[in-house]
Amino acid sequence: MSKSLHSIVSAIKPLDLEAIEAASHHLDQLTKPPGSLGKLEDVAKQLAGMSGKTIPEIGKKAVIVMAADHGVCEEGVSAFPAEVTQQMVLNFCSGGAAVNVLARHTGADVICVDIGVNADIEHELLYSRKVRKGTNNMAKGPAMSEDEALQAIYVGIELVDELYAKGYTLFATGEMGIGNTTASSALLTVLADEEVVATVGRGTGIDDQRLLHKQAVIERAIALNAPDKTNPIDVLAKMGGLEIAGLTGVILGAAIHRCPVVIDGFISSAAALVASRIAPHSVSYMIASHQSQERGHERLLKAVGLSPMLQMDMRLGEGTGALLAFPIIEAAIKIMKEMATFASAGISQS
Amino acid sequence: MSKSLHSIVSAIKPLDLEAIEAASHHLDQLTKPPGSLGKLEDVAKQLAGMSGKTIPEIGKKAVIVMAADHGVCEEGVSAFPAEVTQQMVLNFCSGGAAVNVLARHTGADVICVDIGVNADIEHELLYSRKVRKGTNNMAKGPAMSEDEALQAIYVGIELVDELYAKGYTLFATGEMGIGNTTASSALLTVLADEEVVATVGRGTGIDDQRLLHKQAVIERAIALNAPDKTNPIDVLAKMGGLEIAGLTGVILGAAIHRCPVVIDGFISSAAALVASRIAPHSVSYMIASHQSQERGHERLLKAVGLSPMLQMDMRLGEGTGALLAFPIIEAAIKIMKEMATFASAGISQS
Repeated sequence: MSKSLHSIVSAIKPLDLEAIEAASHHLDQLTKPPGSLGKLEDVAKQLAGMSGKTIPEIGKKAVIVMAADHGVCEEGVSAFPAEVTQQMVLNFCSGGAAVNVLARHTGADVICVDIGVNADIEHELLYSRKVRKGTNNMAKGPAMSEDEALQAIYVGIELVDELYAKGYTLFATGEMGIGNTTASSALLTVLADEEVVATVGRGTGIDDQRLLHKQAVIERAIALNAPDKTNPIDVLAKMGGLEIAGLTGVILGAAIHRCPVVIDGFISSAAALVASRIAPHSVSYMIASHQSQERGHERLLKAVGLSPMLQMDMRLGEGTGALLAFPIIEAAIKIMKEMATFASAGISQS
Repeated sequence: MSKSLHSIVSAIKPLDLEAIEAASHHLDQLTKPPGSLGKLEDVAKQLAGMSGKTIPEIGKKAVIVMAADHGVCEEGVSAFPAEVTQQMVLNFCSGGAAVNVLARHTGADVICVDIGVNADIEHELLYSRKVRKGTNNMAKGPAMSEDEALQAIYVGIELVDELYAKGYTLFATGEMGIGNTTASSALLTVLADEEVVATVGRGTGIDDQRLLHKQAVIERAIALNAPDKTNPIDVLAKMGGLEIAGLTGVILGAAIHRCPVVIDGFISSAAALVASRIAPHSVSYMIASHQSQERGHERLLKAVGLSPMLQMDMRLGEGTGALLAFPIIEAAIKIMKEMATFASAGISQS
């Protein structure tokens, strides 16, 4: 691990156990059977552990949508043509995509980042942080260099620094990149030591034949690049994508600032897996949102150590599933803040 | 089935298939892979089928919390004393319970109904619609008469009539009643032909020994009362509760007005099961919210034909899980209303 990455890892601290204890004690005074609010209580305690406050506050909310292209698309692994990445970036900027609708609905801002789109795109709302124009085809060699993977990680970390300084304290991960379920499946296969039959799914909607082809491409890429599964940066560089590396940085950045970061679907979870292997304490700052319909997502979440709250059969990405979890997280805080206690309401305990 | 109940059943019509078709067509024009928003799309289509409009509107929102007591409590089946029912009703009226917090959070009104609390309670915000003071102990005879069960169903139907006239068009079911997981498990056991080991759980938190006792009490009650599983009113009267009967009416009432009714946890789902056996078309107006931690809830939802959106490990009732689904339902409508189409955004299709 590089020297500067090592300092990032050391900046990520465990949760505050005393604050969790205090939150837990408070929850048990509230007018409900102990633990009966399930994951709402877990989230409340986790947020207390991050913030160090029994009843935490949420500031501004952002979904960070990282976009990049994938050289592996030339192998024909996706149902959509590669130019859809850039077209969708403009759709995000003009507010017409699903992620925009759900961000408005949940009071979040969409931060759309060009971290590696294979085209020159300009828009006043676009964060242009291009590391390079798409990755190379992993079936023919490493997707990118280690240095490029690290650069992309730093883009994510620095973006969170910048947003945190502007008052954002709740983050969601989102992404756009035709071909990125291929990269994510490859990362899961290598980092969690899985077989491609369990990790490779239909992405945006490929048929049986193309699914087998996609699995074969990933197997070939792994055999060719021989990534070192004990070195997450090596695996990320050889098999990953620039948006996945960027989101890994977003997650690490949120953890450094002790802010919750809500993990969206399959691709975001691949970034979470990489982050967890770089800095295990970062997992404490992650909140899983939904179980996507993409094959392998369940295993992927388990490999990170996360349990999703939503079962929506979604498989869109963009951060859409993560945004649906925002009102639930805010609900957890309001439960802490507004519920009566057994004593104040004069209610008999068991 | 009584004559007037028969007229209620005939008033519940199937969904409008043309409106569903139109909604489905619209969804496939939006900038996302077809079907990739999963249950959000299902909900959008279902709401279209209810309202007859491609893009439906939601009016005022209510969670109807029906409260009642259970004679079977004298068998010692619950972790909490029976007087908690009335104490919690006052907590609902003064705004301190979890359901109040989540209703404020989601912009819904709490409609708290005394349909069978075993005490005289008064509060300006309480809907006093008491059918009788609690049920009889089902382990010693029928919980109530068929006539009382029908009266309680009509309370629910008439309440929805009243609320609908005031502009409410989205309903959630909620309940309070110490002992009501016992009644719900008994209903599930009989109506779905299940074994008590699969349908009886820990409710608000009983230990292993009391769980075995609770199962034995239910088996005894079934043997004694011999409910006719083909007659939902007979089963409801002998094994049910007044709040469960009231919620059955709420569900039927919502279906009559072609409004969505969001089903909360185990007890609400027992009411949904009874409603589905009285009027099979009523299922089309139900939206399942969460999979509760109570044993048997998964089987119960399957018996009704529902698939939950949330996995929160909650087991509180009151309508809390149903309220967490409100923002998701509103998100589904906004997706229909606000997303760009492939044509308008200039995006290539697969």
